[in-house]
Amino acid sequence: MFPKSECERRVKGFQDILVQQGVDGALLVQRADTLYFTGTAQNVHLYIPQKGNPLVLVYRNIERARAESSWEVFPLTGISKLPESISEHGHPLPKVMGLEYDVLPVANYLRYKKVFDKTDLVDISYPLRLLRAAKSEWEIAQIEKNGRIYTQLLEYASTVLRPGMSEIEFEGLLEAKARTLGHETMLRTRAFGFEFHFGGVVAGPQGAIPGYFDGPVVGLGASFAHPLGPSHTPIQAGDMIMMDLVIAQKGYQMDATRMLVMGEPSKEMEEAYRISCEIQERTRLALIPGRKAGDVYAEILNWVEKETPYADHFMGFQNNRVRFIGHGVGLELDELPTISKGAQEILAPGMTIAVEPKFIFPGEGAIGVEDTLVIEGEKGARLLTNAPKTIIKI
Amino acid sequence: MFPKSECERRVKGFQDILVQQGVDGALLVQRADTLYFTGTAQNVHLYIPQKGNPLVLVYRNIERARAESSWEVFPLTGISKLPESISEHGHPLPKVMGLEYDVLPVANYLRYKKVFDKTDLVDISYPLRLLRAAKSEWEIAQIEKNGRIYTQLLEYASTVLRPGMSEIEFEGLLEAKARTLGHETMLRTRAFGFEFHFGGVVAGPQGAIPGYFDGPVVGLGASFAHPLGPSHTPIQAGDMIMMDLVIAQKGYQMDATRMLVMGEPSKEMEEAYRISCEIQERTRLALIPGRKAGDVYAEILNWVEKETPYADHFMGFQNNRVRFIGHGVGLELDELPTISKGAQEILAPGMTIAVEPKFIFPGEGAIGVEDTLVIEGEKGARLLTNAPKTIIKI
Repeated sequence: MFPKSECERRVKGFQDILVQQGVDGALLVQRADTLYFTGTAQNVHLYIPQKGNPLVLVYRNIERARAESSWEVFPLTGISKLPESISEHGHPLPKVMGLEYDVLPVANYLRYKKVFDKTDLVDISYPLRLLRAAKSEWEIAQIEKNGRIYTQLLEYASTVLRPGMSEIEFEGLLEAKARTLGHETMLRTRAFGFEFHFGGVVAGPQGAIPGYFDGPVVGLGASFAHPLGPSHTPIQAGDMIMMDLVIAQKGYQMDATRMLVMGEPSKEMEEAYRISCEIQERTRLALIPGRKAGDVYAEILNWVEKETPYADHFMGFQNNRVRFIGHGVGLELDELPTISKGAQEILAPGMTIAVEPKFIFPGEGAIGVEDTLVIEGEKGARLLTNAPKTIIKI
Repeated sequence: MFPKSECERRVKGFQDILVQQGVDGALLVQRADTLYFTGTAQNVHLYIPQKGNPLVLVYRNIERARAESSWEVFPLTGISKLPESISEHGHPLPKVMGLEYDVLPVANYLRYKKVFDKTDLVDISYPLRLLRAAKSEWEIAQIEKNGRIYTQLLEYASTVLRPGMSEIEFEGLLEAKARTLGHETMLRTRAFGFEFHFGGVVAGPQGAIPGYFDGPVVGLGASFAHPLGPSHTPIQAGDMIMMDLVIAQKGYQMDATRMLVMGEPSKEMEEAYRISCEIQERTRLALIPGRKAGDVYAEILNWVEKETPYADHFMGFQNNRVRFIGHGVGLELDELPTISKGAQEILAPGMTIAVEPKFIFPGEGAIGVEDTLVIEGEKGARLLTNAPKTIIKI
């Protein structure tokens, strides 16, 4: 469960948003959101009014929800009785009610619309996501623990990797080991159609294969049916191996990448890696409260284009370049803010961002570095990942 | 990729549905659905008209989509240009258009509604899911291959399991091994909020812990944030260990369960297991084309209540009993039909169903068996899983 003070702070923050937006209350049903405010990941219908305690309604499992929730839990008696439940608990029926339009399926929405037939429904997902973007010290500490697990996995990786082992087998061994270090196995993403598990462990030419995934490195994937991430292709000596992993504990996720190679990297790969680390450091220094996320992106991209020979390879090759260098990470892997083209979000203390400058060389592979950082003050963001920034040579 | 004849048959079947339902065309965007009809899992906007070839529009990755798709692929130029694209490819603009209301987020729906402002939008998800329920011989063969991987994993399990190993560690070793046998790692579910990875490997008392998951066995999970499946609890000698795994290849999934124990099971557990196998065999014989799914459920439940001492333990303990004994499985883990209370679906040849009669004994654990079967003819369904039906004693 989360500390009660965490859930109180979160609900208070959200209630301020409701007041600002002129929304009387919000009905939240997506698991990451309801977990965030209540501390339980059971099936929750959560009604947060502008004032007073949130109403936690649970169909099941109510005993587990009661043991975990920061707030009193009541049985959900049915979707059609939601307005009744809200009234019974002393809240006025909302004239304007927020829903999570970015994740809620149409069928569910139409049911709520029918039940709340005198209520205007509006999308509350963006301010909710923005609230979740800035983490507390407690939240940051969870992410930092995952950083230490990543470092242990990096050490483990060099003991198990053998030429001829497939990408998917290697990643499986890392995942199995991560579990023994406290990793939770299951991860959460938010965007429709965003499928992901554990990591992008890709090696050699597979690192440069473009795909639908909205990131610099996609991978071949296990088959055409799952066309991203590690494949059944054997890893060869000399392949640049990207170990991009997401580690989770208590629902909080951390995202990091280091490079491995069995043998020696080429001079060009060494140089591209060095530049990745320099870009990351420049980004770290630029991640300062009050700045606009899109401005940081523009500044870094400008530097890459002017000062490095690899602008065409940055975050994808040529037409396949993606227009970001970092993304928020927390209970979900695709949180706000993104450090991306035109992003309007204003950076604030506590925002946790995975910064992943990567270069793509067709036929050769992907190379780069990634760490999760937290925005603090004028001196730049702080690394939550303590893995050494060298290419691991095996 | 899928054989082109598969995609042709599927599209034809769906076009017959569109005609029957008076829907002029359907715009499909969910990955399992678009993969099903096209053979590519890239990001596809798929428009299927009542007549003629489906229109496959891809934002990215278009090269991979072209290499995999059974149909010609065109670039997606923008959501606002969808009606234009449909017209340009010689299809009339639909007066009535189907969407996947059960999975499509409200935000996406509202965008399509604005763009197709002269079109009535309707939900096409149920008949689409029903079409997908009945598999071809090619599809069944994929699922059957996964059954053989499950049997290999069962043999492997007895070589690695040790007292004191945690559930989540044990499951991690099975998952890592499964990858070397061709398993794809990533799985697909359809229902909103259905989170799942690989399996429910639960042991001893954890097998009896209820939760939100809509199944007989939930598990403690890795933490309150992921409260289902395996936990960090050590497995003890004498614990009844449920090895419920989902294996996938080419997108097709198979679901099976066997029991393991380090030592000897109690007489009561042996007996409950024997009864599970008997229930499964009775269900197998009852899964006959033309029967109503809900009638099969009622018949089996009636037998359990009259002929076994464990009705109160069946598919959950007392209040936590779930009202089904089987669920469709294919590209998604929660396909139609379910063999559940009141289910109206008529059984048909080719439907692939995971039948999982399980008993819950609080404090002791869960016990039962699960296989994926295919409906064929009057003699009952055929097992697609060939694992021996004995409790594995280690």
